[in-house]
Amino acid sequence: MDQNAACTDFPHQSVTFPEGVALDCGRVLPSVTVAYRTYGRLNDEKTNAILVCHALTGDQYVAERNPETGRPGWWELMVGPGKAVDTDKYFVICSNVLGGCMGTTGPRAPHAEKPGRPWGTDFPVVTIHDMVRVQKRLVDHFGIGKLFAVIGGSMGGMQALSWAVQFPDSLVAAVPIAAAYYHSAQNIAFHEIGRQAIYADQAFHNGDYWSEGVRPERGLAVARMTAHITYVSEEALTRKFGRKLQNAEGLPAFGEQFAVESYLQYQGSSFVQRFDANSYLAITRAMDLFDLAGEHGGVLANAFRGAHARFLLVSFSSDWLFPTAQSRAIARALSHVAANVSFVEVQSDKGHDAFLLEEPDFHATLRGFLAGCAEYAGLS
Amino acid sequence: MDQNAACTDFPHQSVTFPEGVALDCGRVLPSVTVAYRTYGRLNDEKTNAILVCHALTGDQYVAERNPETGRPGWWELMVGPGKAVDTDKYFVICSNVLGGCMGTTGPRAPHAEKPGRPWGTDFPVVTIHDMVRVQKRLVDHFGIGKLFAVIGGSMGGMQALSWAVQFPDSLVAAVPIAAAYYHSAQNIAFHEIGRQAIYADQAFHNGDYWSEGVRPERGLAVARMTAHITYVSEEALTRKFGRKLQNAEGLPAFGEQFAVESYLQYQGSSFVQRFDANSYLAITRAMDLFDLAGEHGGVLANAFRGAHARFLLVSFSSDWLFPTAQSRAIARALSHVAANVSFVEVQSDKGHDAFLLEEPDFHATLRGFLAGCAEYAGLS
Repeated sequence: MDQNAACTDFPHQSVTFPEGVALDCGRVLPSVTVAYRTYGRLNDEKTNAILVCHALTGDQYVAERNPETGRPGWWELMVGPGKAVDTDKYFVICSNVLGGCMGTTGPRAPHAEKPGRPWGTDFPVVTIHDMVRVQKRLVDHFGIGKLFAVIGGSMGGMQALSWAVQFPDSLVAAVPIAAAYYHSAQNIAFHEIGRQAIYADQAFHNGDYWSEGVRPERGLAVARMTAHITYVSEEALTRKFGRKLQNAEGLPAFGEQFAVESYLQYQGSSFVQRFDANSYLAITRAMDLFDLAGEHGGVLANAFRGAHARFLLVSFSSDWLFPTAQSRAIARALSHVAANVSFVEVQSDKGHDAFLLEEPDFHATLRGFLAGCAEYAGLS
Repeated sequence: MDQNAACTDFPHQSVTFPEGVALDCGRVLPSVTVAYRTYGRLNDEKTNAILVCHALTGDQYVAERNPETGRPGWWELMVGPGKAVDTDKYFVICSNVLGGCMGTTGPRAPHAEKPGRPWGTDFPVVTIHDMVRVQKRLVDHFGIGKLFAVIGGSMGGMQALSWAVQFPDSLVAAVPIAAAYYHSAQNIAFHEIGRQAIYADQAFHNGDYWSEGVRPERGLAVARMTAHITYVSEEALTRKFGRKLQNAEGLPAFGEQFAVESYLQYQGSSFVQRFDANSYLAITRAMDLFDLAGEHGGVLANAFRGAHARFLLVSFSSDWLFPTAQSRAIARALSHVAANVSFVEVQSDKGHDAFLLEEPDFHATLRGFLAGCAEYAGLS
């Protein structure tokens, strides 16, 4: 992949809404393009659509080879024919989030006020709710009045929560997985490390790196490495790497590299080939700003008054980024307003990233929940 | 402080051992200078000396104003007249570690093979055991045959363990606090983030920044910010900052900064005024290489055969960097070889840094332990 291939001119499938969108920050994006993919077939009643929401660095290529990276879709384990999210039965939609770099309007899009330039760091601050309002446009575009389900992990789980709160009549079921209802001080702190690493890269050029023909790859790689540590559990790192060396046996020698270091460096360097630094800044900020309780007088239950989706909450026991306590608090708040809620903590040593990995109990749980909802909704 | 004040020409109190020291890596440092401070009075029998070992970014200024930063000594809460480590009773020694930047030989010292240049990244890889062997020279220099105690937190605790293993006849008591007997994959991963941030700083110049008249301040600041997150607990960050904004009230606004971000940035920017990047690289590596079990066939108890110090192990309940499980494993291994060991887990929400902070139970525990050891050793 050439240096500027990521986030540029790939012909992603998309739809443009020229009427634009008003953002939570008070600014207006005069035109919004949404890049998306679909899998399966929408039934005639348009009642079998599932929206899958991606996480911070995900994209719309859920269940097929990613055309930019050449790698499998990020949730092929979960979404596809016969899978828990069965594309033989459901019509699955996934769109790149607002602020992203895979075809949806983001910092790389043309600046509304400075012709001939991209937004860069001038891109308006966006929120999780803004992302969801843009997804709603896409769903409306398909003529779908009510989604069968909105499913997402991590930041995707925040979106599922936002859907249930903003558009309570537009979904049957909501499945926030490894989710959080607010970003904690520690969550914000880890994001801030990543942002500072990007700012510290001389190639950042105050966000205007495109016009300089460079990219802040080293800073973005450090950001990714930092985030990656938070996605895996201490146990998983120990199991996979322990104190093993990269190219040697036995005791740590001098000048040798530990396998975990090599692994992190690989995570960093492969990431910068597919992701844009300004999008990373915009999306991490959107997550930091998410606070469903704060928006409702500090009482989370108040956020859910009026929400009448059926909820499945899933957390993972070794997730220390969005720990079980977050999902438990959401379950409690939903119960408080008499919502229909199931909550499962999956025992796993894989940390936050468990939602992306082979976790049979989790997959069976989601499959069962969707089957129950399908029966409830009269989908056969 | 001017740009190059840190780690340069301050006249730290020191002693030089021109015979040098052989290192674990197989190389020899031809001459070693050790910068140190002492507090209290060495008794005539030379039996009342306590060596305090500092952590990664600490220094020899334990119990007095630091002359470079103008800030209080890093452990004035613990060490001083009438304090738990009572300088009216004990003679306290603290030296800057090998590889450090406060007067002891480190990357800033003259290169042994390239006259007129500092070592920079050519500085030999050093280990915790090497640091301790250099401390032993200093103790010998004072004519002290047997230390009353070796006390240290975090990396200082690794040194206390190394003392007990390397020089079992040279100390009465060992107090490893918030310590670890090996650096885990996650510990190494966090250090590696810091190192990569330093490498990514254009001002690093492959470690030769001094000759360029610059310093990799931004990279080093990111390294410090990353490490700092690991020193505090999630609870402490929530208690201190939550989602508060730095300069505003109410809900997070756009363009506002969260207080935790401002705090982290301050931690980063103040650190680079007092610490040297090459020392940071050298000392983090020494910690990564520490593995008392690995060195002894994977059996930690084997490390302690022959150790006959009286041990006090202290951990803090919310420390997720060197969690209680580490201290518990050390206690178990010591018990296995019938060593004299006390182990206290202090309930605290302050995380790893609790050992530096006001923790009355911890201070009382250490005071009581030392009193018992003094009675045992016939110190009145």
